Amino acid sequence: MKNVIGIDIGGTNIRAAVVNSDGEILSRTKVKSNARDGIKSLLKNLEEVISGFSDFHADCTGIGIPGIIDQKNGVLTQAPNITGVKNFPLTKEIKQITSLKNIIVENDANAAALGEFWMGSGSESSSLLMLTLGTGLGGGIVLKGELWRGEDGMAGEIGHIIIDPSGPLCNCGNNGCFESFVSAEAVRRVVGNNNELIDYTSGIHPDDIPEKIMQLAKEGNAEAVKIWDEIGRNLGIGITSLVNLLNVDSIVIGGGLSNAWEFFENSMLGEIKKRALAGPRERLTIYPAGLGDDAGILGCAYLALKELKVFN
Amino acid sequence: MKNVIGIDIGGTNIRAAVVNSDGEILSRTKVKSNARDGIKSLLKNLEEVISGFSDFHADCTGIGIPGIIDQKNGVLTQAPNITGVKNFPLTKEIKQITSLKNIIVENDANAAALGEFWMGSGSESSSLLMLTLGTGLGGGIVLKGELWRGEDGMAGEIGHIIIDPSGPLCNCGNNGCFESFVSAEAVRRVVGNNNELIDYTSGIHPDDIPEKIMQLAKEGNAEAVKIWDEIGRNLGIGITSLVNLLNVDSIVIGGGLSNAWEFFENSMLGEIKKRALAGPRERLTIYPAGLGDDAGILGCAYLALKELKVFN
Repeated sequence: MKNVIGIDIGGTNIRAAVVNSDGEILSRTKVKSNARDGIKSLLKNLEEVISGFSDFHADCTGIGIPGIIDQKNGVLTQAPNITGVKNFPLTKEIKQITSLKNIIVENDANAAALGEFWMGSGSESSSLLMLTLGTGLGGGIVLKGELWRGEDGMAGEIGHIIIDPSGPLCNCGNNGCFESFVSAEAVRRVVGNNNELIDYTSGIHPDDIPEKIMQLAKEGNAEAVKIWDEIGRNLGIGITSLVNLLNVDSIVIGGGLSNAWEFFENSMLGEIKKRALAGPRERLTIYPAGLGDDAGILGCAYLALKELKVFN
Repeated sequence: MKNVIGIDIGGTNIRAAVVNSDGEILSRTKVKSNARDGIKSLLKNLEEVISGFSDFHADCTGIGIPGIIDQKNGVLTQAPNITGVKNFPLTKEIKQITSLKNIIVENDANAAALGEFWMGSGSESSSLLMLTLGTGLGGGIVLKGELWRGEDGMAGEIGHIIIDPSGPLCNCGNNGCFESFVSAEAVRRVVGNNNELIDYTSGIHPDDIPEKIMQLAKEGNAEAVKIWDEIGRNLGIGITSLVNLLNVDSIVIGGGLSNAWEFFENSMLGEIKKRALAGPRERLTIYPAGLGDDAGILGCAYLALKELKVFN
């Protein structure tokens, strides 16, 4: 049995764990990442996390980070959520400040997809797409157990397939991206200035609006139920494109908005039934994510174990 | 140097060749497939083709066919263009009627993608999508030199990603498929009843309309030029989704409509520049197909050579 470390670096927190080759978490920790204070501050916190695991013999460490990774060279090419990062030699710097010899770095959304593939809702699957519905829509593509990273580690931008070319402007500059129809941003846009749903005079934080709409749906509010119906239909449209193109067996939906699963499931499945080709549709199962915040940690551990050739 | 046979079975013709491991065609033939007369008639013609190559020592034969293939078992699951086919044991039947021992079967669009990847416009590429613009839109996905066939050999249905969910009804039953916007069918729909473009009283065959619109564009007809502009913009929308999702380095566009390349290239590239994420867009090159009708033959030969472990 090998032990490895899986580390999930986020904009807010660093979550990390020692994980064995059965996927059992032997020890875990969580500290602030201070990503906004820059990469040096983040690395200091990372060192603290790693030194906390020094009693465990870990042969390899997998690190997930929100950004674009040049995996061959261990370089963090871009990371919009970490201040001051461009072509940062992440692996080299981490080796310098810690005792780690064997490090593998990966995009955080890819790591979460691998986590769900290994130990989560996709553990029976052969090929899987992960959709993380948060502020935006993150994604990861696992084909026959391997991440498809693309030529530059930029594949899996599931949020930026086009759903409707004349749809709303996306943060990426394009119109009608999948992300604009199924993210927290989409919920806020659909709610709009509907004061019957949201009492804006209460000073509600925009981030809390999706949660509020979930509560209202639970209470049976018809307008709120309609909003999740619409999110579900749009999920169905995007998933139709994905499954017709890739004929994967599993799609896993995670992120904060996936808590509204019971409210968007029916309209999502209805839209897919109406639109997708019969063959790929019949093969597909869609699952809510199973690992919550542990998906990234476990995906990174999986990458580390693969690096050690624990799996064939 | 190994020799193999590559056979491309179409609805109308069977094209076949003996190909060596450098991709050189040593001998070629073309006969009618008689696919509409049923699979037995087709197999008889196939036998004739194969016996014509008996002077060549071919160690393996790759066969491309329009349909869904269960490659592991050599079974043709579905083939809408070949009368009376359902779960037909293709490999077994071909072995019975010919002297061939080593056969590999593949979907024809996948084979064409591999052909362009090996010897055509994608020969410098690492990952490639092939779009065949004909009556419909066929596709194939090659990732790091390997076909992505999906869980059931149904992947690569590039024509059935959604471009606009309220778009025209597609033959598949969905609305707004990519195919409905960029195929010969799309050209005919856009032309509509425009008698200034097409003199319908002349008894023109619908299949000849795209060719006619190409001619008119060549002559500088503004309406015809506008139609190819629109096809190009729609190509750009679909390609944006594909490249954001998969971060491939190459897209190859073939099929009859690709002859209008000069008329749709600018609007296609303009739309991609406007819409696609910078990273994947900068990596991407889009090529017109280079092999014409030989793409399928060479892709099948490539599969046969791979089976013989000629390539690593």
